[in-house]
Amino acid sequence: MPAQTRPARGMRDFLPEDVRRREYVIGVVADVYRRYGFEPLETPALENIETLTGKYGEEGNKLIFKVLRRGEHEASGETDLALRYDLTVPLARVVAEHRGKLPTCFKRYQIQPVWRADRPARGRFREFYQCDVDAIGSQSPVVEVEMLAAVSDVLATLGFDDFTIRLNHRQVLAALLTNAGVLVHQHADALVALDKLDKIGRAGVARELLNRGIDQQTQVRLMNWLEARYPSDWLDWLEREFTILDDGGRLAFQNLREILRLAAVTNVGPRLRFEPSLARGLSYYTGAIMEVSVPDLAGSLGGGGRYDGLIGMFSGEDIPACGFSLGLERILVVMGERNMFPADVQKPSADVIVTLFEGQPVEDGLRLAGDLRGAGVRVDVYPAPEKLGKQLKHAGAKGIPFAAIVGGDEIATGQVTIKNLTTGEQRRVARADVIRVLTELLRPPSGGR
Amino acid sequence: MPAQTRPARGMRDFLPEDVRRREYVIGVVADVYRRYGFEPLETPALENIETLTGKYGEEGNKLIFKVLRRGEHEASGETDLALRYDLTVPLARVVAEHRGKLPTCFKRYQIQPVWRADRPARGRFREFYQCDVDAIGSQSPVVEVEMLAAVSDVLATLGFDDFTIRLNHRQVLAALLTNAGVLVHQHADALVALDKLDKIGRAGVARELLNRGIDQQTQVRLMNWLEARYPSDWLDWLEREFTILDDGGRLAFQNLREILRLAAVTNVGPRLRFEPSLARGLSYYTGAIMEVSVPDLAGSLGGGGRYDGLIGMFSGEDIPACGFSLGLERILVVMGERNMFPADVQKPSADVIVTLFEGQPVEDGLRLAGDLRGAGVRVDVYPAPEKLGKQLKHAGAKGIPFAAIVGGDEIATGQVTIKNLTTGEQRRVARADVIRVLTELLRPPSGGR
Repeated sequence: MPAQTRPARGMRDFLPEDVRRREYVIGVVADVYRRYGFEPLETPALENIETLTGKYGEEGNKLIFKVLRRGEHEASGETDLALRYDLTVPLARVVAEHRGKLPTCFKRYQIQPVWRADRPARGRFREFYQCDVDAIGSQSPVVEVEMLAAVSDVLATLGFDDFTIRLNHRQVLAALLTNAGVLVHQHADALVALDKLDKIGRAGVARELLNRGIDQQTQVRLMNWLEARYPSDWLDWLEREFTILDDGGRLAFQNLREILRLAAVTNVGPRLRFEPSLARGLSYYTGAIMEVSVPDLAGSLGGGGRYDGLIGMFSGEDIPACGFSLGLERILVVMGERNMFPADVQKPSADVIVTLFEGQPVEDGLRLAGDLRGAGVRVDVYPAPEKLGKQLKHAGAKGIPFAAIVGGDEIATGQVTIKNLTTGEQRRVARADVIRVLTELLRPPSGGR
Repeated sequence: MPAQTRPARGMRDFLPEDVRRREYVIGVVADVYRRYGFEPLETPALENIETLTGKYGEEGNKLIFKVLRRGEHEASGETDLALRYDLTVPLARVVAEHRGKLPTCFKRYQIQPVWRADRPARGRFREFYQCDVDAIGSQSPVVEVEMLAAVSDVLATLGFDDFTIRLNHRQVLAALLTNAGVLVHQHADALVALDKLDKIGRAGVARELLNRGIDQQTQVRLMNWLEARYPSDWLDWLEREFTILDDGGRLAFQNLREILRLAAVTNVGPRLRFEPSLARGLSYYTGAIMEVSVPDLAGSLGGGGRYDGLIGMFSGEDIPACGFSLGLERILVVMGERNMFPADVQKPSADVIVTLFEGQPVEDGLRLAGDLRGAGVRVDVYPAPEKLGKQLKHAGAKGIPFAAIVGGDEIATGQVTIKNLTTGEQRRVARADVIRVLTELLRPPSGGR
């Protein structure tokens, strides 16, 4: 029986074309984040199990991949390590561990896989990449604005021109619920229901709220505010509507106003809008929350927010923090569907194949390959002297655009035949001119990228 | 009690400076391999446990990190997944699984972490990167030569100018042992002992051989051949010395001669030498074997060889293959000790800090930052309006070379102050000239990289 050769459930092999697309997107993300002063961080795939357990709620706990102890302990069934479940808890650990080496205001990006034993589904994998940026150590709204501008720059650089970033604040949400008559102990439940407004619509949310004991009158008040649609002064209007508003609530409105005002002078300005129904799933947010979406994707391309209570969890301090996580897998899906990858991401494994012939010295081919590579050309050498047709077919199957043919005639005359494998056109050029001619042929037409 | 915040045993956090160094080396490796027509492949960190068990010998089996089954099966202590132990077994699986999509001659590189529950030691980690290249599908010695040239190019591009690549052949080793009088069933033991010649010297190897039942007379013959040092025609001389030599042995000598002859026209020529004592630890090699070393490192920077029996293990076919694995961690250690990283790998997180002042509009700072980033400058914005001294101290601690100061005076006159944070020198320039002036200041002096 042949062995099972598929990747494990929910995991994927990335063939060359996949890797090139992934590397392109990751490269853009990292490059833009670096331009905003974020620094790269990487943490191990495996963490001590105590580092992760209890950090992701009861449901999350079940989805952690746990590693068996080894050696004499293996039979015990005990586990001592676990696979990284997100990039935030490892960041909190790193901030506590390396505090002396890190700047007080630490801005890091981290692009690494995480593992979750979720039920695999379309677009949901058990190994997937997260692209996180977090700024640790400041409560200033400049942090949110810079982060939103960076995310906006990433998406614009990738070619997205129709994304929206919705902005809300956990304290505004709390005020909204309180003023509608939702009791404090029902807030968490109500947020879970509201979070689904996009997916299940108003009627669906109403059912969910009712199931969670929130009556219709309360719902009507809630929905009136959420669907008021006063884009010009929605924020001010809502604040005036709320009869119950403590200092925290007023500061939250103030904070959103400042973020919107400062964002207006950056490239994120036209993308950003206040959206009081935005809830975000995670419970740890304490301030502004944000989420980015495009019209043709249910769900978001990424989201984030301020979470001032989490980063200090290992050291017992209060450390302010704000973060944003881009969903690499979703970005790749949308870019694939929309054909957004630039041509050079999809180019073949080599620019030229150098052919070898039986009875002809292989050295000439190897020398030519070496010279071309020295000039930055990507060269494949057909590994053995075989019939020219077979060599060119191999190159064609790999999409290689040109062949450099060094046969007996060519060697005798000190020439090389350059063949365009798409058009079939070919010409002989002097050996000394091959690099120049090929690099010219390979130069993308002006206007291309 | 504060929580444990160190990374798990044998694992490492990579702070920004570490990541930048790793990315630089990985970038060079990938770039050179691409120039040789190798294509990128990535496989999941987790494999089905059956894919890995039994592939690495009894010792290897114990070092595999195994993942507990989840949900109702968790209590059983059973495992169903395991962490990638090397990049070769996953490659064999991918070749069997995706054969229809891969070219018959598949040349791939793969740069990913692997996990081994080894006892951690200086320079030995439980999570470490491998950089593998493999060419699948051809028995031609051109494959070995191209691979050696690529490895040599990688090391030269990284700045290594004193490395040597030793070359041998498993069948030449077999002939050597047979002709010295080592019985076939002792060959594996003898190779293990020989493999340590570099580390434990001739006397040490002699002891090991004796322990494994290989008598002194045999040892003397063996050592006479291994230490003959006839670099000019060692290969020919050895072949003549061997009275017992079957067709496989003759082909092996022939193969090495051809590799050396073809390599001579590539950049690897001067680096490569035949070394009949080179054994390589792994048992799966069937042809040429090679190993690269530098004078100041015990052990090798990488090694590889031909292994024609392994890649077909999942499909039951014979698929010829040749591979080479570079040790990223060791390369990083040597480059660090020798100070080989170029200056721009070690540059700080940003080129410029834009300062913000209490009572001054933050918008001016954000606009300036946006303009500079649009020109490709890496800009940090101090997150809150504070005393200038504090902002500059923060920038200095991060090694940021310049500050762009937009205070009240500057706004009034439409200027920006640019301060060199190393020399303290500062000048006011018109707002419209800031980008030009700063990009000129940031341009590396000619001759630098």
